[in-house]
Amino acid sequence: MTYCLAMRLEEGLVFLSDTRTNAGVDDVGTYRKLHVFRPVPDRMFVLQSAGNLATTQEVLDRIAVDLAAPGEQESLATVPHLFEAALYVGRLGREVTARHSEALGANASATFILGGQIGETPPDILLVYPEGNYIRASDDRPFLQIGESKYGKFMLDVAVMAHGDLVTSTKIALGSMMSTARANLSVGPPYDAGVYRTGTFALDEHRFTADSPVLGELREVWERSIVSALAELPDIELTALSDETAAPA
Amino acid sequence: MTYCLAMRLEEGLVFLSDTRTNAGVDDVGTYRKLHVFRPVPDRMFVLQSAGNLATTQEVLDRIAVDLAAPGEQESLATVPHLFEAALYVGRLGREVTARHSEALGANASATFILGGQIGETPPDILLVYPEGNYIRASDDRPFLQIGESKYGKFMLDVAVMAHGDLVTSTKIALGSMMSTARANLSVGPPYDAGVYRTGTFALDEHRFTADSPVLGELREVWERSIVSALAELPDIELTALSDETAAPA
Repeated sequence: MTYCLAMRLEEGLVFLSDTRTNAGVDDVGTYRKLHVFRPVPDRMFVLQSAGNLATTQEVLDRIAVDLAAPGEQESLATVPHLFEAALYVGRLGREVTARHSEALGANASATFILGGQIGETPPDILLVYPEGNYIRASDDRPFLQIGESKYGKFMLDVAVMAHGDLVTSTKIALGSMMSTARANLSVGPPYDAGVYRTGTFALDEHRFTADSPVLGELREVWERSIVSALAELPDIELTALSDETAAPA
Repeated sequence: MTYCLAMRLEEGLVFLSDTRTNAGVDDVGTYRKLHVFRPVPDRMFVLQSAGNLATTQEVLDRIAVDLAAPGEQESLATVPHLFEAALYVGRLGREVTARHSEALGANASATFILGGQIGETPPDILLVYPEGNYIRASDDRPFLQIGESKYGKFMLDVAVMAHGDLVTSTKIALGSMMSTARANLSVGPPYDAGVYRTGTFALDEHRFTADSPVLGELREVWERSIVSALAELPDIELTALSDETAAPA
């Protein structure tokens, strides 16, 4: 599996992807799932992928071919708006999936997060479904997840309320990623982070390896905080509750 | 869906179940998923259920019938060991599922957690699969989950390291339950808790309703702790990292 997430903030965007791929437990690999396209100076795209690795790679190759070929065809250099970039990626995904579906069935599909900025319009993040349509992140919970999204959702839900800056949000993202990797072997390091500041059209990229001291320290403090939070929780008196709110046997 | 969990501690056992059932979003109900059997003075069983509600109810009815009927048939009163109680529940589950499988297909299946104590042997918790076999909780992570288990797994993983007592563990269980309910509408209050002290053959039971002040206070402190833990996390300097561990574009 895979776990990728993206967050939309006042200052910009945060992306984080794991790199583990597996076709069975005896065929585990490491592939980049965070891809950057900057076809012209005033547009920048980040594409994160989950699902069939072959489909993902063919979509990336077709994006590159469309960008390289001269002509009028639709590409990340020509789409006027981000939502059209999402529809473009969705169309490529459907085309690639359809070509392989006879052999692969439903296993050929892929899901994407597309984020970035085009010109003066605000940056945004969109989730592109295998069916080719898309949704934006909501205003209340401005993040998107693909792949193994359940394990790390609570931390995002709660921590995003803190309305942190780009650095804090990157830490939240790493916390969500580590929660997931701890609970599910199919998600693992290295982790690729991308931080985008609105209007820069350039992505700060960072790869966190398994032995990264930053990652180790984050995990240690995070786990210690959760254990010590337990001590702060108000005590519940089981016997008192029993009298007060006993459930029928 | 459903979320049930059980923990095995030095002092005894902790059980927690939600009560939400749904057949589509427009058919949501509240059913007890934590059931207690104390057929004779020196044995106590807790059965938690996830999956098809009709199958679960028929299994419970058959357990009761076997207990009520005089005779030599296998029942929770006669099985010599906990693992045989698990196999007994597994057999009932398979029989009920098989009778309804022509009409329902795979949707008729149910999964159980069986916990309790028989005589002098130590209490234990076992997960009973729809196929009728079982596993115990591991020594390293002495908890079991059924239903929507992913959302609340991280909190259990981390917090169980704290090796708390029965009260602390009940708080951990509630934290895991609230993480799940927050992220997934198909899990919801009231929550039924059962706390068992080794050798008592009696279960302390408590129902936490949605408006429970205890639950509200727990959630508020827990969420505040997570947000404040963020502030404690070591800062990461994105630009410094960029130089040090830049990923290939």
